[in-house]
Amino acid sequence: MVKTIKGIAASDGIATAEAYLLVQPDLSFNKKSISDADAEISRLKDAISTSDDELTKIRDTAKESLGEEEAQVFDAHKMILADPEFTGAVEQEVKDKSVNAEQALHDVSENFIAIFEGMTDNPYMQERAADVRDVTKRVMAHLLGVALPNPALIDHEVVIVAHDLTPSDTAQLNKKYVKGFVTDIGGRTAHSAIMARSLELPAVVGTDTITKDVKEGDTVIVDGLDGAAIVEPTDDDIKHYAELAKKFAEEKAEWEKLKDEPSVTADGKHFDIAANIGTPDDLQGVIDNGAEGVGLYRTEFLYMQSDKLPTEDDQFEAYKKVLEGMKGKPVVVRTMDIGGDKHLPYLPLPEEMNPFLGYRAIRISLDRQEIFRTQLRALLRASAFGNLRIMFPMIGTLQEFRDAKKVFEEEKAKLVKDGVKVSDDIQLGMMMEVPAAAVLADQFAKEVDFFSIGTNDLIQYTMAADRGNEHVSYLYQPYNPSILRLIKHVIESAHKEGKWAGMCGEAAGDNTMLPLLLSMGLDEYSMSATSVLRVRSLMKKLSTKDLATLADRAVNESITNEDNKKLVEEYLNK
Amino acid sequence: MVKTIKGIAASDGIATAEAYLLVQPDLSFNKKSISDADAEISRLKDAISTSDDELTKIRDTAKESLGEEEAQVFDAHKMILADPEFTGAVEQEVKDKSVNAEQALHDVSENFIAIFEGMTDNPYMQERAADVRDVTKRVMAHLLGVALPNPALIDHEVVIVAHDLTPSDTAQLNKKYVKGFVTDIGGRTAHSAIMARSLELPAVVGTDTITKDVKEGDTVIVDGLDGAAIVEPTDDDIKHYAELAKKFAEEKAEWEKLKDEPSVTADGKHFDIAANIGTPDDLQGVIDNGAEGVGLYRTEFLYMQSDKLPTEDDQFEAYKKVLEGMKGKPVVVRTMDIGGDKHLPYLPLPEEMNPFLGYRAIRISLDRQEIFRTQLRALLRASAFGNLRIMFPMIGTLQEFRDAKKVFEEEKAKLVKDGVKVSDDIQLGMMMEVPAAAVLADQFAKEVDFFSIGTNDLIQYTMAADRGNEHVSYLYQPYNPSILRLIKHVIESAHKEGKWAGMCGEAAGDNTMLPLLLSMGLDEYSMSATSVLRVRSLMKKLSTKDLATLADRAVNESITNEDNKKLVEEYLNK
Repeated sequence: MVKTIKGIAASDGIATAEAYLLVQPDLSFNKKSISDADAEISRLKDAISTSDDELTKIRDTAKESLGEEEAQVFDAHKMILADPEFTGAVEQEVKDKSVNAEQALHDVSENFIAIFEGMTDNPYMQERAADVRDVTKRVMAHLLGVALPNPALIDHEVVIVAHDLTPSDTAQLNKKYVKGFVTDIGGRTAHSAIMARSLELPAVVGTDTITKDVKEGDTVIVDGLDGAAIVEPTDDDIKHYAELAKKFAEEKAEWEKLKDEPSVTADGKHFDIAANIGTPDDLQGVIDNGAEGVGLYRTEFLYMQSDKLPTEDDQFEAYKKVLEGMKGKPVVVRTMDIGGDKHLPYLPLPEEMNPFLGYRAIRISLDRQEIFRTQLRALLRASAFGNLRIMFPMIGTLQEFRDAKKVFEEEKAKLVKDGVKVSDDIQLGMMMEVPAAAVLADQFAKEVDFFSIGTNDLIQYTMAADRGNEHVSYLYQPYNPSILRLIKHVIESAHKEGKWAGMCGEAAGDNTMLPLLLSMGLDEYSMSATSVLRVRSLMKKLSTKDLATLADRAVNESITNEDNKKLVEEYLNK
Repeated sequence: MVKTIKGIAASDGIATAEAYLLVQPDLSFNKKSISDADAEISRLKDAISTSDDELTKIRDTAKESLGEEEAQVFDAHKMILADPEFTGAVEQEVKDKSVNAEQALHDVSENFIAIFEGMTDNPYMQERAADVRDVTKRVMAHLLGVALPNPALIDHEVVIVAHDLTPSDTAQLNKKYVKGFVTDIGGRTAHSAIMARSLELPAVVGTDTITKDVKEGDTVIVDGLDGAAIVEPTDDDIKHYAELAKKFAEEKAEWEKLKDEPSVTADGKHFDIAANIGTPDDLQGVIDNGAEGVGLYRTEFLYMQSDKLPTEDDQFEAYKKVLEGMKGKPVVVRTMDIGGDKHLPYLPLPEEMNPFLGYRAIRISLDRQEIFRTQLRALLRASAFGNLRIMFPMIGTLQEFRDAKKVFEEEKAKLVKDGVKVSDDIQLGMMMEVPAAAVLADQFAKEVDFFSIGTNDLIQYTMAADRGNEHVSYLYQPYNPSILRLIKHVIESAHKEGKWAGMCGEAAGDNTMLPLLLSMGLDEYSMSATSVLRVRSLMKKLSTKDLATLADRAVNESITNEDNKKLVEEYLNK
């Protein structure tokens, strides 16, 4: 029986393949007293040896398909299995306590995990706790005779079906064979969704039930355009979606042609389409997709990938690489956005009841100025190598912007005095993500060089709903007239003072949002590199003249998020 | 040497008295091996016996000055000291482990505390953990020969100096002798500040250092009008503040005369001044202070004071009592505002990373409708006994208001069908505290009967700063032009549709805010009962004609919170 499961369209495209269930099996067991310890130890040794053979196979496959780095994690697992301190302790536990191997394995591994996790001054050893957990799971599965999913061993085309996908899950996937994702939970900003877009795989998330609706090996169509999974489709379904997929492929081919074209509307108005990056490695994608700049360089990765604060020189090298790589095109660098859900192991932050409403981003930078000044010096030195723009995250009051600008000016003056070459036309802007700032945008516009609207946080604060909290996910409403009013006010305020306004949140690359933002005159659209050509193509079909009144209707006539979805759909389909 | 310590003015008035340091002494100790267990046990018994004598004295004093209920906690402490299971275990520990009495006491009490706290299905026994902790502290102090503060024994006039004041601290204070509070931490919404206002004691909070600046017995002047503590004042200082205190007392006497007067401005415009309550017991204060209604009845106390969900009848009785007590004056009841920082032991809520941005208030009520329907039925039945208005907390979208209203209409229809008498003109309104709703107030005003602006949450969300988080307390800015713009928009939107707008947050009773709110035409001001007469008095001195342009200047010309503080000060002093 064909079943259609609705979800959230998280990444464009259509794929049809066999389902691969990336679902953890039930590894629960009962504690048992055993009388024959030797037999139990022999059962344990079998499970360890089978696990080791499996890990060898996985490592070899992973090395070939995913590369050396991804394969190394399995070497770490093999080392644990070869470590007599670990396996010997399990055997001893079986003997001493006369318990079954499952119980002994569980107790010993919990003990190891607790010790590793307790090494709070050693992040490397702390990470070993995850390895012990993973390898224990594997041995336990063999003891219990259940199958553990081994995504690294996939050797034919599949659609991955999972409750959720973690970064370590996706690291093990062979992109050659994975055609799409469908998950139970998550929204457009979930890790699985972002990963799917960056891999250009169709994905549907937030289906609630897909792991229950699908059996291993069922045929599944992922419709990432419309947000649906079709399980055990009929031949007609397969034919229909093959046509849609063909059409989409043609569309994509059309988009490809736009790579070196400017971003213009049907009536010839030019807007900037830029890309978001996290590290200099992401530059290739920006260039391959013909983005007209970097609209958001998230510098916190520099801080998160290290075990100490990055030095001024480390940062300088990274910024310089990006600025040079963009060959004079603008690069908007956002200063450190730590706190909230992003923590650094080496920088203790206060325990907070509501970290999203707490000590984060510019609030930390203005308080811990030594960190902020190092970053600004690195940016200033790099400014000689390209077209640098700097923006501050989480600005809520004009005083904060003034304070941040003052620190910037001080560091600039010091460098100039020391004879260091720095650019003299670095634009200084701010993220628009705190509602207070958006409401007062007209006053901010007099003092900043530009705004970049961060829709993820702006929506979260304006709706007073944590975007990661599934119990209030219905309040993530990008088209709610209240959100659109704030966005419109920000754009108009910028223009009134001759400044520009961009957007670097999820919404900037959204097809429903684009007509609304064009109607408001947003100047710059920064998104995942893989979305650039799709948006450029849609932009080409829209005329600012036709759109003139759309935004006014969206903020004055519409009452709900749904009203505005319908409004845009009607406009696009007319 | 006279020292002036600045802080936050938390409760009006001026007091001069000796400092009483309510500061916990250092109770740390070293573990020691002992050889003479009998001598150690005798030392322990002495400490227990001294503690018991002290507790008897405290209990007797407390009974006389504070009443039977407050005194009972000390009986509980005495029972623990008399319990051989507890004291015997400490003695046994000294013997068995050959450790000093401090270590034995610590270990045994930690063990008892863990057992009590582990009884998660028995809130009564869980509370006993606090008793064990308190009584252990007392015995430990005597073992170590340090003095524990015993606020219940205060027998002369004092100013309480503390790092912070908890509800259990304030319960032990003899209000006859306590003339004021000064604390290191806290803001105007801290427990200590609210308590001071309800006791009508001058208080200064957030001084950072007062516990270090003052010695026991120093003379201290608390200036709750200006937010300062003067330590070891000169005779001239004492004279100066005595004059100020006299002037304030005269002012208060003037305020008293306004008890039965209406709330009008100098130019004869009438506005409603109402009071906030938590339980029917608070009604007396409302009546004594001549409030013109109850602007906020926080019903969550009904849920928090019980060990299960309150029944429909329990709730009906409470609501009826308040409605009858107000004799036809309006009573605005807010439906259950649970979640965020308010939890019910018997209603498990999801663990959330940011509870203030999570599952709370109307979001729970719409999801767990059985709880909501019970409350609405109780309210509907009580509506026959007075002038009931109902408002929903945390409304963010119009859909939520529509859904809540629908549930109300359904329950009303059922009751009417069953022949139950319900009022036919119950106004249905909403809290204005989610920024999205404030921005879209013009649309909401078409469907609601009234708005009540909740400034505490509105500021918290608009500034994206947890009001309880000291690391971002600088962002609690009630006069920030962005906040004032939202408030002004809410009021104007209500008036445009012929509806009324009130305010029930901290700001409604604030002297600086009042001219701004009058200028905006806010209709109803709901505050602590003890603030009603002060605000009525200030209102009498202000003319809406003079104020006409104040709000416009505050939202259009001012840029910062400080700009607006200055604007109002200049206006009031001109």
